[in-house]
Amino acid sequence: MNKKNESQKTPIRDLGRQGLMDRLSARFTSNNPATVQGPGDDASAACFRDSITVSAQKLSLEGIDFDLSYFPLKFVGYKTAVHAMGQVLAMNATPLQLLVCAGLSQRFYVEDVDQLFLGIEAAAQTYGADIGFVDIQSSYTGLSVAITAVGECDAGLLTRRSGARSTDLICLSGNVGAAYMGLQLLEREKRVFTGETEKDELPNLEGHEYILERYLKPELPKALLDNLKADDIVPTSMCFLTSGLADGTLRIAKSSGTGAKLFADKIPIAKATYDFAETDNNLSPLVAALNGGDDFQMLFTLPLDIYETVSKEYSLDIIGHMCEEALGCTLVTPDGRSLALESPGMENV
Amino acid sequence: MNKKNESQKTPIRDLGRQGLMDRLSARFTSNNPATVQGPGDDASAACFRDSITVSAQKLSLEGIDFDLSYFPLKFVGYKTAVHAMGQVLAMNATPLQLLVCAGLSQRFYVEDVDQLFLGIEAAAQTYGADIGFVDIQSSYTGLSVAITAVGECDAGLLTRRSGARSTDLICLSGNVGAAYMGLQLLEREKRVFTGETEKDELPNLEGHEYILERYLKPELPKALLDNLKADDIVPTSMCFLTSGLADGTLRIAKSSGTGAKLFADKIPIAKATYDFAETDNNLSPLVAALNGGDDFQMLFTLPLDIYETVSKEYSLDIIGHMCEEALGCTLVTPDGRSLALESPGMENV
Repeated sequence: MNKKNESQKTPIRDLGRQGLMDRLSARFTSNNPATVQGPGDDASAACFRDSITVSAQKLSLEGIDFDLSYFPLKFVGYKTAVHAMGQVLAMNATPLQLLVCAGLSQRFYVEDVDQLFLGIEAAAQTYGADIGFVDIQSSYTGLSVAITAVGECDAGLLTRRSGARSTDLICLSGNVGAAYMGLQLLEREKRVFTGETEKDELPNLEGHEYILERYLKPELPKALLDNLKADDIVPTSMCFLTSGLADGTLRIAKSSGTGAKLFADKIPIAKATYDFAETDNNLSPLVAALNGGDDFQMLFTLPLDIYETVSKEYSLDIIGHMCEEALGCTLVTPDGRSLALESPGMENV
Repeated sequence: MNKKNESQKTPIRDLGRQGLMDRLSARFTSNNPATVQGPGDDASAACFRDSITVSAQKLSLEGIDFDLSYFPLKFVGYKTAVHAMGQVLAMNATPLQLLVCAGLSQRFYVEDVDQLFLGIEAAAQTYGADIGFVDIQSSYTGLSVAITAVGECDAGLLTRRSGARSTDLICLSGNVGAAYMGLQLLEREKRVFTGETEKDELPNLEGHEYILERYLKPELPKALLDNLKADDIVPTSMCFLTSGLADGTLRIAKSSGTGAKLFADKIPIAKATYDFAETDNNLSPLVAALNGGDDFQMLFTLPLDIYETVSKEYSLDIIGHMCEEALGCTLVTPDGRSLALESPGMENV
């Protein structure tokens, strides 16, 4: 929200709740033929014949999932929609419909809602989903956005967290830790802006575009999953990384009844992540990769016997392998030490 | 939340986010065979062969949708789940899975979360749905609960708001206005309790159980819809009443390109609603019925030629008829006057 332009903005009461929803719904176009009923009725409807319906939901809350002082509303919409679709994609399914509920306090204007939905629409278009349901209501304190993604999957392709075998390869769709660094940069610049730190540290986002984009406007590795699918390669297990690589690995191992071994020097970390870490002694790229969160990558397992094919033909990283449950979940450092993988809990509640 | 018992309650950090979700997920049992994957993975999965998937979402926010000083957490869960399922039911579909996201601030304990989910589970069991997805996160200010209902529908049975014809009968599944009265009673007793009104008005909920239950623990007219379905009667349009009868009528008329005529003396209003209205001169049963909200009844239209059958064999009320669009949407009073139907906007934003 741009406070400077409030006088040019339209109060939501000028349109009313229904007027606002009509305005939003009227501009949504269909991105896929599964949609039978879009916004404007009690529910959305889709037709997925002979397939499994896969659904997931993400609730984004102001102050927890996003700070509007540096998180543009358009990106809040984009990221929340991408988060919901990422969870559906992590079952090896195709997200096809989005359901959106937004709770707005009195400080939001019609133009703010437009920005939020521009982001949601952009995400829907990027990944071929339709917006199927929209509801808007009052909120007492801030902005709350709940988005559900509904998708479909052929029965034989459904990939759960529980299917990993003790000999499987552990694969990652791309580098991790960058989004966490983007968040640290934004939080640091916010402290500078609000005068909590020394004046001579001027806001400086330049050169750090990559980590900012990974935090503010993350994308999904849908092309990689589509390529694997096209070649009849079905992961034995898969998990969407939103709470760090350690968390994802522990979830797959626990669900599958196995252990896991990750090799620290195999974990992909972007140069931009290292570059930003050098600006602050408290930042470790490896810790960001393991526990940083918001990576939006896929962590998945593949059978050992396709190692040659997979390592050559796809844009992915093989970072370790599953093992017997009794061996636990460990990280092997370059000097050969084994450290137990740990994931932080829900500290903020 | 019972503040008195806080010392006996378990802080959420003792279990951690994952521990809390595991605890909740472990006790959910399956209520229908469509569920392929329940909580504990990235998304839920269901199999609806040769049918249409129908989904709807409800976001409930503390201070807006519920006041925890008189709204027990169990009922918050129950009502939010019922609201989501009601929207799916209003498409003439069967809700089969629930997706739940809850945002909790630091004042909530594990036992509070248990209460919330006891209500959600009870609603799921009542209507034959499974809980397919659970996510819990921090919240800055209060409790936010987003629930999506996913269901199925035979293609020929899907009922939208847009199918009413200008000669159709307007039907209601049961009485309206009671939930609004329940809310007024609770708000009045809260003011007495907090000392905002005279001391001699002692809290008095006795004798008003019906209107309280309609507000705190509403049910859906699923049996009526099942009966109509069993007799091959498909409504031409349907709308779930959450914002009053006037709002629902206007929505169906607008979507269908028709007008509508309601007869005030045909609108079913419970005796308990009249009884409570007599305690306060500012309360009108008819206004509560038209604009009160939270009725959770179905408003639907049926062809005129089945009037005889419908009026005799089903537990429903015929309250008017659709008409040509040019005639507008009106309420005919017992003395023959026609008043334009109006619905309040989104005043609180």
